[in-house]
Amino acid sequence: MNETSYKLAERLVPTTYLHQASESRTAREKLIRILMEQHKCPEEGWDDASIELFLNDLALMDSNNFPHNCGVGEREARIYSGLVSKRHYRLGHGIGRSGDIAEVQPKAAGSSLMNKLTNCMVLDLIRATGVRKTAACLVVPLATGMSMVLCLLTVRQQRPGAKYVIWPRIDQKSCFKAIITAGFEPVVIENCLDGDELRTDVAEIDRQITALKPESIAAVMTTTSCFAPRGIDKLEDVARLCSRYGVPHIINNAYGVQSTKCMHHIQEAARVGRVDAFVQSTDKNFMVPVGGAVIAGFDSAFIQQVGKMYPGRASGSPVVDLFITLLSMGIRGHKKLLEDRKALKSLLTQRMEGVAEKYGLRVLNTKNNPISIAMTLPENMNIPLTELGSRLFLRGVSGTRVIRTSDDKMIAGTRFIGWGSHSKSYPYAYLTAAASIGMTEEDVDLFIQRLDKCLEKFTGTKNTKETYGSENDV
Amino acid sequence: MNETSYKLAERLVPTTYLHQASESRTAREKLIRILMEQHKCPEEGWDDASIELFLNDLALMDSNNFPHNCGVGEREARIYSGLVSKRHYRLGHGIGRSGDIAEVQPKAAGSSLMNKLTNCMVLDLIRATGVRKTAACLVVPLATGMSMVLCLLTVRQQRPGAKYVIWPRIDQKSCFKAIITAGFEPVVIENCLDGDELRTDVAEIDRQITALKPESIAAVMTTTSCFAPRGIDKLEDVARLCSRYGVPHIINNAYGVQSTKCMHHIQEAARVGRVDAFVQSTDKNFMVPVGGAVIAGFDSAFIQQVGKMYPGRASGSPVVDLFITLLSMGIRGHKKLLEDRKALKSLLTQRMEGVAEKYGLRVLNTKNNPISIAMTLPENMNIPLTELGSRLFLRGVSGTRVIRTSDDKMIAGTRFIGWGSHSKSYPYAYLTAAASIGMTEEDVDLFIQRLDKCLEKFTGTKNTKETYGSENDV
Amino acid sequence: MNETSYKLAERLVPTTYLHQASESRTAREKLIRILMEQHKCPEEGWDDASIELFLNDLALMDSNNFPHNCGVGEREARIYSGLVSKRHYRLGHGIGRSGDIAEVQPKAAGSSLMNKLTNCMVLDLIRATGVRKTAACLVVPLATGMSMVLCLLTVRQQRPGAKYVIWPRIDQKSCFKAIITAGFEPVVIENCLDGDELRTDVAEIDRQITALKPESIAAVMTTTSCFAPRGIDKLEDVARLCSRYGVPHIINNAYGVQSTKCMHHIQEAARVGRVDAFVQSTDKNFMVPVGGAVIAGFDSAFIQQVGKMYPGRASGSPVVDLFITLLSMGIRGHKKLLEDRKALKSLLTQRMEGVAEKYGLRVLNTKNNPISIAMTLPENMNIPLTELGSRLFLRGVSGTRVIRTSDDKMIAGTRFIGWGSHSKSYPYAYLTAAASIGMTEEDVDLFIQRLDKCLEKFTGTKNTKETYGSENDV
Amino acid sequence: MNETSYKLAERLVPTTYLHQASESRTAREKLIRILMEQHKCPEEGWDDASIELFLNDLALMDSNNFPHNCGVGEREARIYSGLVSKRHYRLGHGIGRSGDIAEVQPKAAGSSLMNKLTNCMVLDLIRATGVRKTAACLVVPLATGMSMVLCLLTVRQQRPGAKYVIWPRIDQKSCFKAIITAGFEPVVIENCLDGDELRTDVAEIDRQITALKPESIAAVMTTTSCFAPRGIDKLEDVARLCSRYGVPHIINNAYGVQSTKCMHHIQEAARVGRVDAFVQSTDKNFMVPVGGAVIAGFDSAFIQQVGKMYPGRASGSPVVDLFITLLSMGIRGHKKLLEDRKALKSLLTQRMEGVAEKYGLRVLNTKNNPISIAMTLPENMNIPLTELGSRLFLRGVSGTRVIRTSDDKMIAGTRFIGWGSHSKSYPYAYLTAAASIGMTEEDVDLFIQRLDKCLEKFTGTKNTKETYGSENDV
Repeated sequence: MNETSYKLAERLVPTTYLHQASESRTAREKLIRILMEQHKCPEEGWDDASIELFLNDLALMDSNNFPHNCGVGEREARIYSGLVSKRHYRLGHGIGRSGDIAEVQPKAAGSSLMNKLTNCMVLDLIRATGVRKTAACLVVPLATGMSMVLCLLTVRQQRPGAKYVIWPRIDQKSCFKAIITAGFEPVVIENCLDGDELRTDVAEIDRQITALKPESIAAVMTTTSCFAPRGIDKLEDVARLCSRYGVPHIINNAYGVQSTKCMHHIQEAARVGRVDAFVQSTDKNFMVPVGGAVIAGFDSAFIQQVGKMYPGRASGSPVVDLFITLLSMGIRGHKKLLEDRKALKSLLTQRMEGVAEKYGLRVLNTKNNPISIAMTLPENMNIPLTELGSRLFLRGVSGTRVIRTSDDKMIAGTRFIGWGSHSKSYPYAYLTAAASIGMTEEDVDLFIQRLDKCLEKFTGTKNTKETYGSENDV
Repeated sequence: MNETSYKLAERLVPTTYLHQASESRTAREKLIRILMEQHKCPEEGWDDASIELFLNDLALMDSNNFPHNCGVGEREARIYSGLVSKRHYRLGHGIGRSGDIAEVQPKAAGSSLMNKLTNCMVLDLIRATGVRKTAACLVVPLATGMSMVLCLLTVRQQRPGAKYVIWPRIDQKSCFKAIITAGFEPVVIENCLDGDELRTDVAEIDRQITALKPESIAAVMTTTSCFAPRGIDKLEDVARLCSRYGVPHIINNAYGVQSTKCMHHIQEAARVGRVDAFVQSTDKNFMVPVGGAVIAGFDSAFIQQVGKMYPGRASGSPVVDLFITLLSMGIRGHKKLLEDRKALKSLLTQRMEGVAEKYGLRVLNTKNNPISIAMTLPENMNIPLTELGSRLFLRGVSGTRVIRTSDDKMIAGTRFIGWGSHSKSYPYAYLTAAASIGMTEEDVDLFIQRLDKCLEKFTGTKNTKETYGSENDV
Repeated sequence: MNETSYKLAERLVPTTYLHQASESRTAREKLIRILMEQHKCPEEGWDDASIELFLNDLALMDSNNFPHNCGVGEREARIYSGLVSKRHYRLGHGIGRSGDIAEVQPKAAGSSLMNKLTNCMVLDLIRATGVRKTAACLVVPLATGMSMVLCLLTVRQQRPGAKYVIWPRIDQKSCFKAIITAGFEPVVIENCLDGDELRTDVAEIDRQITALKPESIAAVMTTTSCFAPRGIDKLEDVARLCSRYGVPHIINNAYGVQSTKCMHHIQEAARVGRVDAFVQSTDKNFMVPVGGAVIAGFDSAFIQQVGKMYPGRASGSPVVDLFITLLSMGIRGHKKLLEDRKALKSLLTQRMEGVAEKYGLRVLNTKNNPISIAMTLPENMNIPLTELGSRLFLRGVSGTRVIRTSDDKMIAGTRFIGWGSHSKSYPYAYLTAAASIGMTEEDVDLFIQRLDKCLEKFTGTKNTKETYGSENDV
Repeated sequence: MNETSYKLAERLVPTTYLHQASESRTAREKLIRILMEQHKCPEEGWDDASIELFLNDLALMDSNNFPHNCGVGEREARIYSGLVSKRHYRLGHGIGRSGDIAEVQPKAAGSSLMNKLTNCMVLDLIRATGVRKTAACLVVPLATGMSMVLCLLTVRQQRPGAKYVIWPRIDQKSCFKAIITAGFEPVVIENCLDGDELRTDVAEIDRQITALKPESIAAVMTTTSCFAPRGIDKLEDVARLCSRYGVPHIINNAYGVQSTKCMHHIQEAARVGRVDAFVQSTDKNFMVPVGGAVIAGFDSAFIQQVGKMYPGRASGSPVVDLFITLLSMGIRGHKKLLEDRKALKSLLTQRMEGVAEKYGLRVLNTKNNPISIAMTLPENMNIPLTELGSRLFLRGVSGTRVIRTSDDKMIAGTRFIGWGSHSKSYPYAYLTAAASIGMTEEDVDLFIQRLDKCLEKFTGTKNTKETYGSENDV
């Protein structure tokens, strides 16, 4: 309803009643205007009604929703199923154009606008969370692994002679595979043991760059967020090396936006040395379904280059999710989630220490890992440790990992000794748990209860009869 | 409601009334059972109620929807916004695992099942549409361009020495850029003029393979669906060459599933020669929002390889769209859409011939293009041809292209003379229109009316005054 | 998005692309403006996107959706469940005020506006469908029966001495019960047999009015739409009597809006005599869920009186349904539905005649019933006729009625001989079927097939063995 | 998915992963089974996914959703608009049958089941909230006023000679009008002043019953929840009178379910005397949109009688709302809301006392009103008191009432002196505010701030200039 219609409404509803409605409408329009003016994530989250109204407004700006459109092209965003149309708020054109995923689409002004605004809001949030120097970012409908591939393929264009990616070991398949998929050869840098913690072997990276020659190195790929007892990589030291040797540096910040510590180190690394891009998952950091990532960097030109590297259009669905979520959350809501998470990390650590003590175990000292916690495990001659993991899983505990340190694995021709532990020879078997964004105190309580129960049975503190009983229980 | 609950319902509602409800429920469960048994797209489409019920059922199989789940991992599919959760039917885990996009997820049995079933249904449909020999397919949350990249990156692993991709010219940016993004050097094969039509220069492909050596060729990349006056590539001839030289052959079948002709040629090519993969967009062929593609092939191992090449998880959203749409459409619904499209292609051609005649123009004779139609354009000394395109666009006609044949364009270091026309020297300026899936007779009517009106003004059949008037009109 | 925001959008999306979006927006705003100006059902239906956008707009005009509202009353339209809020488009205040169901609510300008507009659109549609003289109407969240009660209670205020309601018999419980509920004594007028058809005994009505004295008569209550072989009441004759004696006349037009014949007779009756109100169901005439009715009349004052008779607020849900449906349908869509229905009535009659002939039966000649069709039934010594009805029901035929003419029923102290047949002594047993709005040709086909099959088994045309087999079949 | 389909799923997803999904499914089915077994509101609320799944299940039990239904009746629940169908979860048949609103429908086993279960859950909740003796209840799609009419019409059938309804004055239009609409003559009993509080004049009721004769009295209609300074009626005393004289007693408990005090007095009244029915609004007590009420009583036969009095079907929409809400809330959620409300009542009183003190005013002492609070108002020669109300309203405060005690009003022939104050001569002007269910602490804060600000300006504590400024502010 525009002004004229409001005026006409007075013939049916008294002006005084309409007055407030009109004020309320103005207040909502102001929200939109401020967003359009400032291109920032709102300080206070919007209510769902305002968000949906805005989305509907945007959808009506796309050609497939024009009342008198007639489409004679090969792609007209016609949607067969009403269910599908509805769940996409009638947005059908996706994002990007054939040449560039960040470009606007002539047929889809609304989708394009949403895409731009989302990128702006994410940039604002990343800056607010600690990486103040961030120059640009790009939300892509790819998860972290494929986003790393895209960054590496972009690097390839600029360094046609490069063959290697230097990679401080982290035992998570997709980042390693990203190197392979992009057509490079990984140079695995084993981690050093520092107390209980596994840290970056900076000297070895230096040695490898020198040995292989900087020009043959496509990039060094470091990692922030990871499972304990590995710590965040020594980003600043690596950034200095990359700067010195002129080698690109790409940071896998998969779920690091939720930790101000990770963000702080990225900011510092960019200050003292070279960081070309840092990549983060949208689902792990912003509580949306799997499927998007944010590629951010300190040089707009590089991020633009990444956008241009993506051939053709792409799904707008992860952008819609993020758009809704950031508007709903607001800067304040996001901050609150981060604070809550931090507090739960402390609580979880403390509660795990309680359980550990009960069974003569201990929580590993990993002060450089702000999210994940590892606890040593008991031995039981008769039952393999993996059984403990399954039991937790079957009791509805998801996300723990039981690591035996004795597994080996071949991935794309590379052999990883001690797979899962980020190390060839980590001294203890352990279990990890993480305090990630959106966790609740109830999650901690339930986990500790179930962990205690499982350990009790596993260590046989209870008599045999009850252990038998446990089988049914599982 | 299970049997027990149905039984209990008899205490509130007479058995006789429940009888039919129960039969209806059985009928719906049978639909699901048959799908689970046969792994085929249903012959008759399902109603929305059944589809949503099934989706809800599947969602409840994922850990994030377990009533007593406690999540202590770094990715627990917690969804912040209710709007987002709703639009994904509470599915949050996406598809795939770190190692393989086709793999099932332990935490997400429901999402995994949906993904598998969707792949099965698409395979069934592709076979039913004419490529009966198809061995496997993979629905990926990437549009066509990026899917081509994925195929090429897979090929790279198998042919480490390969440097070139041979590519019969088609003036559409994203497929060309896919070659660049994948890190290969494109070898552009200019098309031959055959009557009005542009066709594959098979002899030149042969020459290039020989000259560059087969082992240095990553693949030949052909195209089926394209804008007239280019025709579908001579797939069978190219397939024979690829077979003879042992060179991979990848077909860009972007919107070809909607044409039995395209599908027939792919089937034939695979019968007489080599086809490694053919790639099609989900939005253009199945009327879903942009964002997915189907990578299909005649050797399951290759398709599996492609799946393994994708590092990490990915958005499940395009799969959800396809899942809903195929269940809703059924084989019969899809067939109907194809028949309607074919009939509209005839109608559109005929109507365009009518307009052409009126203005002394003609529809180009392009019998090898089953979807797109090209019509020559008049000349007007005072107004550039592009203006004609804008006018159509401003009148709500989307999807036409006005081609002047005089444009040049540099893309990633390659210069394309006559950009847009698939040729260095196409003899006529022209305009294209396509009869694509989901088009209606009303679209044809509106287009013809508006085209007529625009041509009338453009050719000045009407007097000057009225032409002036047209400005306001736009 | 208002003008300012559109202007600001140009910083992110090129003006040319926004141009069309803006035109499209203007087109939609024009739809709303015209509705607000003319207060008429749109000629062409709106698309769902426009409807939802408008509904969201309206919802934001209600106080419960004001961003900074603080509620300290006893009724603040707070909605507990997000599911419930969503399904009501966040409208919570219902319609009406304590004094009058048609009054606007200070807290709910949006809901009030929607209510007013709906009433206007329905009035327009009723006029367009044939009752051109209609002065006012009121959509109430009551089904037909309770709406009749409301009318009768209104009449009671004006005729405190009245005790009786004269009612030409129609065997449908709720209209009879409405008389009782309203506290009146029904005077049942048996129908006359005219050929196969049952028609109003106008002379007997005249006699009763005279005998009981006009001032003791609250109203005569006639019926249009009913099951054959009863025809529409002789509205004009009754209206003349009511006019002559000064007795109110209320017409139960339950599902008569779908028939121009019913509407025509109402218009004529009002022209030649007295009609105080005619009442129609929203579900049966406009294809919405059960729950609303339209009370219409030729004197605005009476309709206003009815609105004031309703004490307190009421559910806005039936109004929302009608609002959406009328906007979606448009005058043209409604007309189309009526034409289709009329054509299907002919088809259904013809097909039933076909079946009748096959079994030596006949379709009753009831030319004054434009919706329902009756067909005589065979006799079978061994199986009661009701069994035939059950069989049809169990085969998924809903809505047929098998009438034996031999049932008796006591309702609220009145004994109805031949209950179900509108007559004490209808000569044949029969089955009815109706061609009502929204029916499809497929419905007719399925019905005829199943009717044929059931009759075949019932009449034993087939041999015994197969008849036995039929038990399983059911 | 039934067992067979789960089994078949193992061909696509490993059994171990399905195991948990299956357990989760069992857990949900158990929720349904328990509901079907116990017919009670669940102790713990269900999640939205479970609720929607159940609703979808129920919808599929209705004939309009049968896959092979063919409808040839006059009412087949065909729904025109997809938006409408969706918002009703595809339930179209409403509730009730022509004879009885509580009866099950042959065509709609699912809707019928939902209706029955909702009635059971509400009964359970009413008992749990304090009226343990409640024998039966009926959820009707009518707001409180019309529900009172229905009760009175039921009474009329049993007491054909009755003419009067005795009614302790409460200044709220709809309950008074209900008496008129039902065709009775109201006998208004003025309240007595007891300290600040207005209480029932029991002796006068006694006098009136005797004077008019018990058999001419249709019912005494008392009220629990009301605006201060009126207190809850002396239910026990009135119940004793009604028992003694054999006069029906109907209690208007509009928003009293949210107060254990109201519920306690109803229970006590039924214990010591006569209560035929007590009526409560669904929106005010259960936080659903306006449109439903619960008619409850201590004698199942009477409640059944009320159900039978409702002629014809009715909207199922309010039942759907309540069904969803009660499942979502659970007994525990409801209890929590009541406790929170009670605490906020204390807070609100205390904060209002703070404001009152500041301006030399006082909060009236009304200990028999558990929900509403009244505070005296200052005098200002230049500005009428009503202006104060408008100012609060324009500042987004909804629900307060400013009462001058000097208004007169004629309603349906009865003159109310001091309208709005429940009294002919209440000594003070005052303002009311209520602490009702769903209120938040933020509401209290905002209200107090705004009240303070308005009083500040109204009393002119601030200098003239600022008062001027305030005009713009409003």
